[in-house]
Amino acid sequence: MNVTVNGRTQHFRTVSFDAKNNTVQLIEQRLLPHEFKIISTKDYRETGRAITDMIVRGAGAIGATAAYGLAQGALAFKGVDLKKFKARLSVVYETLAKARPTAVDLVNALNEVWAAMEAGKTVAEQQSLAVAAAEEFANEDVKHCTAIGRHGAKLIRSGMKVLTHCNAGWLAFVDFGSATAPMYTAQEQGKEFHVFCDETRPRSQGATLTAWELAQQKVPHHIIADNAAGHFMQRGEIDLVMVGSDRVLGRTGEVANKIGTYTKAVLAARHKIPFYVAIPLSTIDWNLRRGFDIPIEERDESEVLGAWGVTQDAKALGKAKGERRYIRVANSNSKARNPGFDVTPAELITGIITPLGIFKPAELWSKRCELGLKK
Amino acid sequence: MNVTVNGRTQHFRTVSFDAKNNTVQLIEQRLLPHEFKIISTKDYRETGRAITDMIVRGAGAIGATAAYGLAQGALAFKGVDLKKFKARLSVVYETLAKARPTAVDLVNALNEVWAAMEAGKTVAEQQSLAVAAAEEFANEDVKHCTAIGRHGAKLIRSGMKVLTHCNAGWLAFVDFGSATAPMYTAQEQGKEFHVFCDETRPRSQGATLTAWELAQQKVPHHIIADNAAGHFMQRGEIDLVMVGSDRVLGRTGEVANKIGTYTKAVLAARHKIPFYVAIPLSTIDWNLRRGFDIPIEERDESEVLGAWGVTQDAKALGKAKGERRYIRVANSNSKARNPGFDVTPAELITGIITPLGIFKPAELWSKRCELGLKK
Repeated sequence: MNVTVNGRTQHFRTVSFDAKNNTVQLIEQRLLPHEFKIISTKDYRETGRAITDMIVRGAGAIGATAAYGLAQGALAFKGVDLKKFKARLSVVYETLAKARPTAVDLVNALNEVWAAMEAGKTVAEQQSLAVAAAEEFANEDVKHCTAIGRHGAKLIRSGMKVLTHCNAGWLAFVDFGSATAPMYTAQEQGKEFHVFCDETRPRSQGATLTAWELAQQKVPHHIIADNAAGHFMQRGEIDLVMVGSDRVLGRTGEVANKIGTYTKAVLAARHKIPFYVAIPLSTIDWNLRRGFDIPIEERDESEVLGAWGVTQDAKALGKAKGERRYIRVANSNSKARNPGFDVTPAELITGIITPLGIFKPAELWSKRCELGLKK
Repeated sequence: MNVTVNGRTQHFRTVSFDAKNNTVQLIEQRLLPHEFKIISTKDYRETGRAITDMIVRGAGAIGATAAYGLAQGALAFKGVDLKKFKARLSVVYETLAKARPTAVDLVNALNEVWAAMEAGKTVAEQQSLAVAAAEEFANEDVKHCTAIGRHGAKLIRSGMKVLTHCNAGWLAFVDFGSATAPMYTAQEQGKEFHVFCDETRPRSQGATLTAWELAQQKVPHHIIADNAAGHFMQRGEIDLVMVGSDRVLGRTGEVANKIGTYTKAVLAARHKIPFYVAIPLSTIDWNLRRGFDIPIEERDESEVLGAWGVTQDAKALGKAKGERRYIRVANSNSKARNPGFDVTPAELITGIITPLGIFKPAELWSKRCELGLKK
């Protein structure tokens, strides 16, 4: 999407590849929203570390970064010995595959590039196929998000107030995003609407990443405390809810997403407000039979006990500008529990917005062939 | 309640009066949970400022502070001229009445002390009646909270997990609290239970004040993000919800309380978890006919856009210990909306715990005489 830095507007993807210099360009997401910076990784090891260190996060963006990382490893090989090349590439593959252990898209992306590469008969051919496949993976991600935007934008009418939770924006993909894609498309179509952006404690991805995205695209929005959505629904100030997902169960239509999503779905159902989940097809898990069995990561309690932000009194700290800093908010001898995700049952979900159209959660299984489940 | 400072345990009220030195002692609540300090106000002006500056907050605690402030103003008068005394006292009354414009308990407390004082025939008599009436007001507050604890404790069984929101603890009253009173009583009765303490963004009163209270009383507890309660309810980890209230409508049973309370009530109803509201009778508003008409204060957006806490790297700041500091969390060119309260309809409330027993919300009006509504 477009980003305006120092008055200059330019288009960026979260991740892109410079084949000439063999570098991967990434938005340094840990600095957002306080600073916008592009970093450039010089080799696949650095690219892997960027994934591990969460410079880049979000399923689509991680997948594309890994794909480019494998292409980068391929291009770095000097020589013509195909056997040595493949041995080297196996090391690259393993390194990248381990960068984030639970990211399914990461391994899928690596496998796609690897499979495409196999068709080459020489090192040079395989190198060029790897680059092409990585570009293809990134471009496909953009296409999927664009299609989500096209289908989802039909749900947004001028004058609407849309609630979103966490960040399922373009920063989580290569471009455009999932839950934000319908908003960006609706905006292109000239529709005027307002977004309520849940703060999304404890990591505040709504207040930081989603709010930054919306501000950059000049989408009118307000950040609200996670506690406030119910009140605004009660007062008729929310017309539509759109969120992303980390895993949708193809068999049941249950949706795992950032902690707090379930709460918003319960509130929306009470107020008869449509609740939509926007995902690429790669988010559908066709195997798991019960949402209850989705493993819920309990994250470090420090996230709940404090907050990250920039100091507002830079002068007192002897710095030119605010410095990123963690503060402890909570009582010092109290503990916290910190589940990272929750599971929303299908009955609370109005529809799943996919690149192929909008489906009822219960329809997913009956349309599984159309939706890409291979036998 | 008991507070342990530097290994020494001592009983404190949030507010108390030293008639000999004519000072009001207050827990400096703005420093909690990071520091425990008692401040002493030397005259009624300082006492008024302590209310304005929120050194003391919470209906019961504010009421008692104002009552003591009026007694303090009375004691400070030198002379025997009753007319001059009353003229002086009128100034004291006006000053204290303006300390927090919306606090009903404040004016009620001042009126009680004033009315009691009138019975005196000399300045000395009126002075001593004022002190006695202020003490009576504070003691009554403690009695009400103790009675809430006695009735509410019946709802807590050993092994239960209890959720609470915001701080309706002893810090908001003179002692014991409203929503926490049943917990403290249950603990005295030897019951073993666990408390989940909502962080309560944006001001984090749960993570700071309630968690501090529970830790001081050694009540086992965890702080959770406001987003997490739904997940824990879904997993069967919450058995009971207990909150306080800023205003309960006697005619409808609707409950105004800290933003996010409504959300918890909706979730509790979905999971068939009992939801109780604990209040002294002074919280009941017998006049207002619709919860929708309760004015909802929209507070400063800075509360949502950032957080207050103590720095964890005191050394870097050249300080001996962490310093209290505000950090900006959110995107810098985004705005926030910040409603401070919400309204929970009667249908979602299992019962109202009062000093006179537990009532269904719909019962309040029919029992209005018993509950103290004067014709």
